[in-house]
Amino acid sequence: MTTITSLQNPRVKDAIRLRNGRHRVKQRRILIDGIRELARALDGRIDLVEVFICWTCCTRRQVKILSSMLGDFHVEILYVSEQVFEKLAFGDRSEGVVAVAETPMTDINSLTMLDNPLIAVLEGVEKPGNVGAVIRSADGAGVSAVIAADGRTDLFNPNIIRASLGTVFTMPVCEAASGTVLEWLRENGLTIYAARVDGSVPYTEIDYRGPTAIVFGSETKGLSSVWDTDDITPVRLPMLGAADSLNISATAAVLFYEALRQRG
Amino acid sequence: MTTITSLQNPRVKDAIRLRNGRHRVKQRRILIDGIRELARALDGRIDLVEVFICWTCCTRRQVKILSSMLGDFHVEILYVSEQVFEKLAFGDRSEGVVAVAETPMTDINSLTMLDNPLIAVLEGVEKPGNVGAVIRSADGAGVSAVIAADGRTDLFNPNIIRASLGTVFTMPVCEAASGTVLEWLRENGLTIYAARVDGSVPYTEIDYRGPTAIVFGSETKGLSSVWDTDDITPVRLPMLGAADSLNISATAAVLFYEALRQRG
Repeated sequence: MTTITSLQNPRVKDAIRLRNGRHRVKQRRILIDGIRELARALDGRIDLVEVFICWTCCTRRQVKILSSMLGDFHVEILYVSEQVFEKLAFGDRSEGVVAVAETPMTDINSLTMLDNPLIAVLEGVEKPGNVGAVIRSADGAGVSAVIAADGRTDLFNPNIIRASLGTVFTMPVCEAASGTVLEWLRENGLTIYAARVDGSVPYTEIDYRGPTAIVFGSETKGLSSVWDTDDITPVRLPMLGAADSLNISATAAVLFYEALRQRG
Repeated sequence: MTTITSLQNPRVKDAIRLRNGRHRVKQRRILIDGIRELARALDGRIDLVEVFICWTCCTRRQVKILSSMLGDFHVEILYVSEQVFEKLAFGDRSEGVVAVAETPMTDINSLTMLDNPLIAVLEGVEKPGNVGAVIRSADGAGVSAVIAADGRTDLFNPNIIRASLGTVFTMPVCEAASGTVLEWLRENGLTIYAARVDGSVPYTEIDYRGPTAIVFGSETKGLSSVWDTDDITPVRLPMLGAADSLNISATAAVLFYEALRQRG
């Protein structure tokens, strides 16, 4: 077992570049930080390219988990020094593992439709932390898929991966322009609701038991006019206090769990 | 109208020190960043000490809002240069206003009990952003009060103020040690539920229509043993996916809005 100690190592250099979104697009690869996130990626059959491990950065328990987790998979493991790992690792995460993976397919046409789906659509949601939290809630509530509808969301941004606890790898996620998404939702016979601060229908008055899509927009800009059509019902959460909206991830959790409650 | 241009100005220096939690305790004062947050502080009758304004950092619209907002209040306004404002301001916020206020009272015994209250208790919630988001959801769902139950939560941390959209000033908030809080909840005749990943009762099977308290713990450490008693029902959200929990602010939003739904 050799340990890479040089920051000039070309594979280390390529991996470090993946912190940058443009390089993720160029290399068609992503970074996965942390043990839990890597476990989710394995669950989601993400194609791993290589796994960098710094044993001296791991606790004994982490060494044990990682060894047993990776033992079953044919993936190249590269051991790195602490100094190299520090450059590879994301912020203050220190679980001793960073993996490189092929960027998963996110073509909307590759989305397999389940029976009676519940789909979440996010348009222009600003913060990766919020996108990740929405995916995490979608995972919990049994949402069928999450679609990013603006063509600008970098679904495998390290902050999304982290905030989703890695569920971005197990949840079907895809992306397309808003018009394409709307068309796809209609073609698949989904009843579409748009979460809006000024929505005309309280969310508790909606029947979510059939094939349903719920669309969420940017906290500052709301939804684009694409969603402003007669076949989309604008729904709102009651707001009894001083503020006029919840955080997008809170709104999404409330709607997903109300749908789940109704679906029994 | 004089404009303060020196970072050596003692009031500017004292205000800048308030970015530090220890100084907030020592001076018994807090900082309020942003127009919306200041508006909420005025709504909540927070005692303002002084307001720093940088006109050249404001848009025309902001100048208009601020002028009309502060016109009705007797509070000292100090005009500062851009350079001074930059040091006073929080991160990338640039709305041209930072206020200093007396730290609001957070004694649990000063909490006025409403008829049929719904109380949220947070114990050891790590991130100020999460605490703020919970308060924002509590505000939306008409929660009566939010209690920090570990005596370590700095309720007027700038990140909590921001993530709560300033609703920390309009929502009754207080803090006490966990044991004191539990005693208080019992004395006030509240039925107590604890949100737990391994809770025995699904949250939808609870009747929230009477006087209710819901206790939330740390995402990593859960709740302390104080809450491990027979008169507290552990409730859980169904988790259908790969992860075993939601973000604390998502969990809280789901529970608050289910309570509100039941209360009609």
